[in-house]
Amino acid sequence: MFSKEVYIRRRAELAGRLSAQLPSGKAGVVIFIGNAEAPQNYRGNDYKFRQESSFLYYWGIDEPGFAALMDLDSGDEVIYGDDVEIGDIIWMGPQPSVESRAAAVGAGKSAGSAEFDKAVATARSQGRTVHFLPASRYYNVLRTASLTGCSPDSVRKTASVSDGQVHASLELVKAVISMRLIKEECEIEEIDKACGIGYLMHTEARRSCKPGVCEQEIVGRMEGVTISKGWGVSFTTILSQHGETLHNHKHDGIIAPGRLLLVDAGAESNSHYASDFTRTIPCGGKFSPKQRDVYDIVVACNDLAYDLARPGVTYRDVHLAVAARMLDGLRSLDIVRGDVQDMVSEGIAGMFMPHGLGHNMGIDVHDMEDLGEDLVGYDPDQTRSSQLGLGSLRMARRLMPGHVITDEPGIYFVPALIAKWKREGTGKGFINYGKLEEEYLDFGGIRLEDDLLITADGCRRLGAQRLPIYADEVEDVMSGE
Amino acid sequence: MFSKEVYIRRRAELAGRLSAQLPSGKAGVVIFIGNAEAPQNYRGNDYKFRQESSFLYYWGIDEPGFAALMDLDSGDEVIYGDDVEIGDIIWMGPQPSVESRAAAVGAGKSAGSAEFDKAVATARSQGRTVHFLPASRYYNVLRTASLTGCSPDSVRKTASVSDGQVHASLELVKAVISMRLIKEECEIEEIDKACGIGYLMHTEARRSCKPGVCEQEIVGRMEGVTISKGWGVSFTTILSQHGETLHNHKHDGIIAPGRLLLVDAGAESNSHYASDFTRTIPCGGKFSPKQRDVYDIVVACNDLAYDLARPGVTYRDVHLAVAARMLDGLRSLDIVRGDVQDMVSEGIAGMFMPHGLGHNMGIDVHDMEDLGEDLVGYDPDQTRSSQLGLGSLRMARRLMPGHVITDEPGIYFVPALIAKWKREGTGKGFINYGKLEEEYLDFGGIRLEDDLLITADGCRRLGAQRLPIYADEVEDVMSGE
Repeated sequence: MFSKEVYIRRRAELAGRLSAQLPSGKAGVVIFIGNAEAPQNYRGNDYKFRQESSFLYYWGIDEPGFAALMDLDSGDEVIYGDDVEIGDIIWMGPQPSVESRAAAVGAGKSAGSAEFDKAVATARSQGRTVHFLPASRYYNVLRTASLTGCSPDSVRKTASVSDGQVHASLELVKAVISMRLIKEECEIEEIDKACGIGYLMHTEARRSCKPGVCEQEIVGRMEGVTISKGWGVSFTTILSQHGETLHNHKHDGIIAPGRLLLVDAGAESNSHYASDFTRTIPCGGKFSPKQRDVYDIVVACNDLAYDLARPGVTYRDVHLAVAARMLDGLRSLDIVRGDVQDMVSEGIAGMFMPHGLGHNMGIDVHDMEDLGEDLVGYDPDQTRSSQLGLGSLRMARRLMPGHVITDEPGIYFVPALIAKWKREGTGKGFINYGKLEEEYLDFGGIRLEDDLLITADGCRRLGAQRLPIYADEVEDVMSGE
Repeated sequence: MFSKEVYIRRRAELAGRLSAQLPSGKAGVVIFIGNAEAPQNYRGNDYKFRQESSFLYYWGIDEPGFAALMDLDSGDEVIYGDDVEIGDIIWMGPQPSVESRAAAVGAGKSAGSAEFDKAVATARSQGRTVHFLPASRYYNVLRTASLTGCSPDSVRKTASVSDGQVHASLELVKAVISMRLIKEECEIEEIDKACGIGYLMHTEARRSCKPGVCEQEIVGRMEGVTISKGWGVSFTTILSQHGETLHNHKHDGIIAPGRLLLVDAGAESNSHYASDFTRTIPCGGKFSPKQRDVYDIVVACNDLAYDLARPGVTYRDVHLAVAARMLDGLRSLDIVRGDVQDMVSEGIAGMFMPHGLGHNMGIDVHDMEDLGEDLVGYDPDQTRSSQLGLGSLRMARRLMPGHVITDEPGIYFVPALIAKWKREGTGKGFINYGKLEEEYLDFGGIRLEDDLLITADGCRRLGAQRLPIYADEVEDVMSGE
């Protein structure tokens, strides 16, 4: 948790940005519903608790069962929760009072949970606008629907409150996004810490990657590291010798010399900031010439994005520059043929990289994705592409200092996609299907990902050290492990 | 996953037990809603997937988004789910068809997810009884309410379907409990495996417990072990130098010589069976005489439960015998005074062990707890006590071969509880409050837990080896680590 001044400042800023868009004296109230425990097998046997990210950002309390309210008109700020009784103390130990928790984050008032329901009911009965964020977890959907009287479906939909209907508040969503997109110094410190843990996870993976070891063994060792040092994983670990499956969560393979192991994994720090790195390493410690040829193109794409990312450039344009660099490299391998810019326009890169170059990262690994991907990742003057690959770009915005984004190009050979495009005639004349089918169907995939902070005049890679990435460097470090 | 014969047999048995209680030819349909992904931060950034336990038991499919239906009158068995398309293949890899998944568990039919909604709607429109289990996860609450037309609250309530109302089916719940309570040979093998992983977790904890180490570091190493070897933890790890807090999930303490470290942790195997062990070890490697005195009582209680547990005995009586043994030991330390049986009747043991002796264990660590604690753990002729401790006993039943239960006595000194009972005059004349306040307020707590399988003529401890438990044995093994 940060100092209480951080939360006071954030809430004041939020209230200011919201009020500026709303009728004076009739702005309404903003409610925040913290997360409950999430049942794993049954209620009481829960997954490790994770607080709702915007609740954490504005109210700091990292425990289940809290709610909060900001009255935009009176300026009141109230934390709602229940103090523990003897039965709770036996099972959970003594806990700070709700009043002291509120004081620790600078909220002026506190009350029991039942008062929250009453406060929302009162605001509604007075015809006041009740602003809330679109609910993500199913518990929050049920709770929000019950509090606001709208259907479980509509609490997930965002629209302007000016229409007088009850749904998630577009004004609130935009104000939250505008704040959380630009990371504060104290947040950058925490992301650097999460990157430090991510560095240790990937180091453990690389050291554990030996022929004959089960993939699951490596995943356990990596996740053990982040549980020892932080909250846990920022997302389910992707670790596979079939890197062409972008989010491969099966780990029953045995490490085989000659394959590539793709590891996409991140840590969430104890303060709940994420890191997200990908490396692809040769299972036997050495790349084959064919692997190295493709690998070097991906390295060049990663480095190019780093070189280009700076304030004023859109990340969409960086994605397209990377696509061009990738196609140029693939052309040199005779995998594609033709003019690079033509191929970029035709979306040929999507065959080899069917995902975007990167996404925002912060308290969430895809930061604020539940608030709406386009609202988070696109400027008002940008529209999302329908092309494979570019259409999956989660962060297209014009870059600004304080943005934290991933830089994660990849090249994959997906047999089902190759077959589909060939069958449909997509990329005909550009893609050398003969070569793909003869030489690359069993190649797998390569992705290389770093995390970038946009600075005043460029960017820097987050974390104290960059994970080994150049092919020689990777082989060298693996030979000593 | 087990062989398809296992699932075919289980479903036939379930249909038989249910049909026997219901009007012939009008028994209705049974629906099973498998789990969806559970959002961690937002939808798409999910916790590690865990299937709904009864779905796993009867239908075997360990993937999100499936449902199933048994028609008790026609005998039809249908698996519902959606086949993957190219977009899914890019992200998740090729997947077996729903048809082949159904065949693998011996279900005769399969269909798309939308057909499930239609099948339930058709059954309802025909006035047929729709049996379902009480929903546990919030997603399942929403889904069940939407399918059956009843409120989110009522889908959690269980009552006999004979009343014609829509709620969870008591007949179904009882039939499922009666089957899952008695473990099959193939399940016992899996529980033994989970216990093997649990053994490794606790060995890692003991080896990592050195003065100066942070508790979180130890938790990470333990959880790394179970992620490497199994699905993960069967419940959130409890690891604390304040063992008097029964479910302590804070791990920010630094291991201090002189304290006791209580570790209550279990593994879930890749096939989703649980283990659950507790050990309490001296942080400096040696018990103080005072610690050893209390520790030896807990060992004696654990051994006593093992000696007594056999078919025909109720676990409630075993709990009470353990309470007597505990009070006898505490009397020898002059912590309590008076006749042991009087103290048992007065519930004095609850001050020192405010929880039950054990619970059922299987696919869930508290097996089937979401189906109703009393239905699972109490015979029809048993009523639950209101006493502290005995009132928390989750398994009171007359033992039968095939029951799998935990044996987990503990002695705790909870300052807030001591203060409360003293203030209220509870246990007056029995409890030596002076001694407690002078000597035990900072003691902490001790719990020692093994997992037992009830056999034809007694019980056996699950797992190939028992974790070191006797004080000399623990000190001896720690001195070599």
